[in-house]
This record gives sequence, C-alpha cells and structure tokens, in this order.
Amino acid sequence: MKRSDRLIGMTQYILENPMQLISLPYFSERFNAAKSSISEDLTIMNQMFQQEGIGYLESISGAAGGVRYIPQFNEESSEAFVEQLCRRLEDPERILPGGYLFMSDILGEPNTVRTIGRLFASNFASLGIEAVVTVATKGIPIAYAVASFLNVPVVIVRRDPKITEGSTVSINYVSGSSRKIQSMVLTKRSLEQGTTVCIIDDFMKAGGTIDGMKSLLREFDVNVAAIGVLAEAEDEEEDRVVDQYTSLVQISNFDVRNKRIEVKKGNYFK
Amino acid sequence: MKRSDRLIGMTQYILENPMQLISLPYFSERFNAAKSSISEDLTIMNQMFQQEGIGYLESISGAAGGVRYIPQFNEESSEAFVEQLCRRLEDPERILPGGYLFMSDILGEPNTVRTIGRLFASNFASLGIEAVVTVATKGIPIAYAVASFLNVPVVIVRRDPKITEGSTVSINYVSGSSRKIQSMVLTKRSLEQGTTVCIIDDFMKAGGTIDGMKSLLREFDVNVAAIGVLAEAEDEEEDRVVDQYTSLVQISNFDVRNKRIEVKKGNYFK
Repeated sequence: MKRSDRLIGMTQYILENPMQLISLPYFSERFNAAKSSISEDLTIMNQMFQQEGIGYLESISGAAGGVRYIPQFNEESSEAFVEQLCRRLEDPERILPGGYLFMSDILGEPNTVRTIGRLFASNFASLGIEAVVTVATKGIPIAYAVASFLNVPVVIVRRDPKITEGSTVSINYVSGSSRKIQSMVLTKRSLEQGTTVCIIDDFMKAGGTIDGMKSLLREFDVNVAAIGVLAEAEDEEEDRVVDQYTSLVQISNFDVRNKRIEVKKGNYFK
Repeated sequence: MKRSDRLIGMTQYILENPMQLISLPYFSERFNAAKSSISEDLTIMNQMFQQEGIGYLESISGAAGGVRYIPQFNEESSEAFVEQLCRRLEDPERILPGGYLFMSDILGEPNTVRTIGRLFASNFASLGIEAVVTVATKGIPIAYAVASFLNVPVVIVRRDPKITEGSTVSINYVSGSSRKIQSMVLTKRSLEQGTTVCIIDDFMKAGGTIDGMKSLLREFDVNVAAIGVLAEAEDEEEDRVVDQYTSLVQISNFDVRNKRIEVKKGNYFK
C-alpha cells in the first residue's frame, strides 16, 4: 500500500479510537507496511494533528508500546467556539420563566455537542477517567460526546426508576434552587466500586442536582475526579453547594422582565 | 504543504463533516494547494474510503460544486458487528421482568452506539432527512449517533413537559403492549413545518410509542421518511401498530422463567 493510502486509513482509524493504545505491529499488519514506515507516518501525523489543533500522538515505547491519540483543542479554537456560543445564548428569545434558558436547539446540533465534548475531554484527558456519569435527560448528549473522546462508557442516573433496569440504588436530595425534595436512581450493575468518573451536565444553578449525583456516587464508592457543566448561572454563586467544577459559559444578570441576559466564558478558561 | 500532510488534514476534516458539501476552493485555500492537487487527493481518498468500507466521496461538478462524504459501512462489517451484538444480547443475565432486556451497558459504549448510528445513517443517507427525532431517554444516544453521520439536528420528544422548554404540543397515546394511556410532548419551536425526519428508538415491542410519535409529528406537519429501532421484540409482531421500520436485531422466544432468549439479525439485512 502506498504511503498516501496508508495515511488516510491510519488517520481515520486513529481518530475513531482516541485514548486507545494502538500497537505498531497492528498498523504494520493492517496496512501491510514495515514498522519503520509506520513510524514515519505517525511522526507526520503527530505534527499535522498539532498544527491543526486537534491533539497529538503520545508514543509509548517497549514491547507493550504503541501510540495513543490524545484529543485536544487548541486555545484559540476553543475560545472562538465558546465566544460564539455565548453570543448565541444571549439572544433574549431564549429567556424562559424561572431563570432558565432555552438551549435545546443548540444541544440538538451534533457538531456543537461534539465540540463541547472535545473541550471537556481535552481538560479531563489526564485524570484517568473510566466512565462519564450524567443525569437524564439534557446532559446525555454532552456526556456521550465527552465519553467518545475519552473512550470510556457513559452511565446515566435517572430521576425515575425504570422497570427495564433491574435493581437500583436511589437517594433523595434537595434541589438547591427550588428547595424541593427530589430523587435519583442508578442501576446497581452500572458502576463498579473504585471506578474513577467525571460528572457531566448541561446546566448548573445552585448545584443541587450535581451534589445529589455526588451523594449517589458515594454509595457506589466511586471517585469523582471532575465535574463539567456546559452553563452555570452565576447569579446563584452564593448559594452554590458544589465548588469544584468546570463550566464553559457563565450566565448572569438574568432579567426575565426586561428580557436581558449576559453570557460570558466560564471558568474553563481561567 | 506536502501531500502527506494535506491528506491527513483533509481526511480529518471530511470525516468530521459528513454529508456536507465542501468546495474545492475551500480545501485549496485551507491547505494552500492547487485545485488540481486537491482533486487528486480526493480521488485517492475516495478509493481508500471504499476499500476501508467506510463510505465514499460524492463529487458535484459546476460552480456550486465540490465533494460530499457519504458515510457507509460495508455489508461484511455491518453483519459482523450485528452478529456480535446478537451474541452479547443473548446473555440470559440480561433478561428482566416484563419482557425487557438489560441493554444499558451496551448503549453506554460510545463506540458501539456510534457504529449503530453509522448503520442507520448508511441506510437513510439518500432520504433527504433533515432531523432525527427520538423519545427520551434511551433512544437519545443512538439518535445523536445517526444525526452526527447525517449532519442534521436531533429533536427530543419528552414524556413530561419541562418548564425549561417553553410552549409545547402534547398528545395522549395508548402503549401497545401495556395498553396504558401515556402522553408525550414536543416543544413548539423545535420543528418547522414540512421537515423530513427519521424516528430513532432503542426498543420496539408493539410499537405504541413510535405510533404515538408519528401522531405527535403529524401535528407538526412533518414527513416521517424512516423509522429505525435497535431492537424489536418479534413475539409482539401480531399486535404491532407500526409496519414500516428498520431494525438491527430481533428478539424472540423471550422465556423469563427458563432464562432463555433468542436474538437474531433484524430486517436491516433483508
């Protein structure tokens, strides 16, 4: 196989399998080329990935070695993406009663969701995360996007137990902003003890839901290494029950009456 | 830029933007190369994509022309993937009361979900689909996977109206298998009249939920061009209220007492 063909095939394979260690012999056999040629291909690819701002290839030497694609998103592209997101979210038409913002259209765009996932994955790539946990339903697409770049499974906490799930563990928690008691459940067989996870959600006000998830996850003895939320309501900062988290955008000065709102970059960029 | 660098960059860009028409001048400018070189690159890429069984490049000539990546999955890989899925689903440990099957672990794997999405997208690519519609919550990841390959937005029908959504349209429907009356809602601003959509869900028994979605979508005057379900319960065929659909796997001889189940390839392969 010619180098040009091989580069196309290898690029495709590597992009589809982020964070996964791929041995040189695997490529060597799959594309019928000497290991030295494969090595050269990977060097070119690594340079090009960095130039394009989509990450880099990590080389692991030794018998069990190989190469691993670490997805990243360069700062310039990340900031440009989030700035644009802020401008879209500031549209007064998005303001809904109760201090909420209509985001379903944006969260319905696979490309946007994928980029959001790439940003969190870039940030969490070194934390050894083994699963992404989210709560139904709006956080689900973002959680899958993060998980696809981290190459780990998604675990979904539900607000109502489903008959199709088998036995579950459930907790009650107090919603931070509405002060209502709510419950959430997680299927017993969905998480093993000792797993390292990150929590992903779309929106955080006072943080009651995320705090509830943390309590629930404690029952499973898992380690929460990171929390990522797409948007946080800055006005709720005083009452916040969660302190360690990463947000992409911050929403403030929510003025339902005058249909005004301010959206700026979140603490991701700090 | 050298051809090898360009091929890596172009492969990445094209894979990230399926179904999207990309003009030659765009590549020409982005990778600083003559249009003739770009044309040659695309020819190599098209051959390699087909050889790897991941789709092909469609060329559109003329002033507004360019190239479009049509994701496909060759028959051999598709069958191998679904066969493996069948074997995994046949595990008696998955049997749950009520004729349900535990699938959350499989639906939690981003790579598996992505491949399921690729299969449906391959099948629906020529239907001019403009949005993927699913119902919360288990169908959501599959819907996003399909949508990412078709490069269209996802619209989520909910079982309970959320305050964060604005005004909604709702219908009541009879669940085909349990004969219970249920309701589903869709935000008014989420779909425009005349849109062509496909419906995606994880599991279909008698088809009441999907039939309900069809009724709801009629209120929006949208055209349902295709229905895709990951798994269908074959034992329910007689009572089925939906007849045109594509399934990846068929579940039959569901025997809860003796913990036996049979899973075979769905009508996707017929």
